[in-house]
Amino acid sequence: MTKEVVRVEAAIERALAGKSCAIVSSGDPGIYAMAGLVFETCKVKGIVIMPPASAPEAADDKNVLRLEVVPGIPALCAGAALLGAPLTHDFAAISLSDLLTPWELIEQRLEAAARSDFVIVIYNPKSKKRNWQLGKAQEIILRYRDKKTPVGIVSRAMRKKQNIEIVTLDDMHTAEIDMQTTVFVGNSTSSQYLDFMYTPRGYAKKYQIKS
Amino acid sequence: MTKEVVRVEAAIERALAGKSCAIVSSGDPGIYAMAGLVFETCKVKGIVIMPPASAPEAADDKNVLRLEVVPGIPALCAGAALLGAPLTHDFAAISLSDLLTPWELIEQRLEAAARSDFVIVIYNPKSKKRNWQLGKAQEIILRYRDKKTPVGIVSRAMRKKQNIEIVTLDDMHTAEIDMQTTVFVGNSTSSQYLDFMYTPRGYAKKYQIKS
Repeated sequence: MTKEVVRVEAAIERALAGKSCAIVSSGDPGIYAMAGLVFETCKVKGIVIMPPASAPEAADDKNVLRLEVVPGIPALCAGAALLGAPLTHDFAAISLSDLLTPWELIEQRLEAAARSDFVIVIYNPKSKKRNWQLGKAQEIILRYRDKKTPVGIVSRAMRKKQNIEIVTLDDMHTAEIDMQTTVFVGNSTSSQYLDFMYTPRGYAKKYQIKS
Repeated sequence: MTKEVVRVEAAIERALAGKSCAIVSSGDPGIYAMAGLVFETCKVKGIVIMPPASAPEAADDKNVLRLEVVPGIPALCAGAALLGAPLTHDFAAISLSDLLTPWELIEQRLEAAARSDFVIVIYNPKSKKRNWQLGKAQEIILRYRDKKTPVGIVSRAMRKKQNIEIVTLDDMHTAEIDMQTTVFVGNSTSSQYLDFMYTPRGYAKKYQIKS
């Protein structure tokens, strides 16, 4: 975390000195990534920021920092695409990292998402030091969801050592999971078909697909 | 909806006849889009599908359909990037369309997400025929969240007639909103800074940003 603060401060300093500067994140910079910290830092430091195109009359104002977030493909989209289509209906993204968030709040979110039948995307499921949170998450979700619910597990999506597995909720803890893994817990309508996992958008009967 | 079924069936028919065929969605094909329907249709019709690279020994098998989902940048990332960084912490995506989902379930999800302090991304907030759901969503969220909570509203992100607004939760209903709008309701820590909206990843004090 401290290194991230240093990176952001260095980038802002260079940008204020007149250089074009980019902070690079993997995935999408706005989802559990660096973009938030840039805005937080500018606010704390009282730096005036503007989107690239607004207020053209301020184009030469050296006290104004032009800031643009370039969206990318987040792990939740890359992983979902490799699994099939687990996110075609309402979903909740929850990080299990309790470094900056109290565990009680994470538990409350898991419980709320499980009870209301959201597909659940779990970020930061496990690290070498944080190894019990995923088991606890599984326990909470099992209170509300069938143990045979499909769970898609994707590590290093579209990179070297990519790994894709589809398991059941009660087997989730047996899969290969680390900090570069995203876990997709299906809702009550999600299903596995061959090597794919998907969530139907609504009620199949309404679509009238002919078999 | 019926037209979407026809499109998917036509694409599958062509692909089974040996032609390469793509179904194009805006945004990401797996988020409230067409990918789920493709898998659902293949399952109902009993078509054998495989990822492009698996089982190379089946490469010439005409009964096997090779299926690849190419991820894209969903409206929730494109919109978030234009607003700043509203999704840097846990969030829930909820569609207000009750065409295929009972309104009671949508309400339950809104309530659960509001109560557990998720940032809430609302898809399909309003159409000409569905005009009361967003007001009801606002009412539910206001039970748990301050009326001054920032709400980012993005229509046609990165397209013609793009529109970006940041309002407060109690003013949400006054913004320009239609079916091409995505609404981002901040959590209890989200804030507006100048023309941007962001959600800090954790607790600012832990970052030790120097002012």
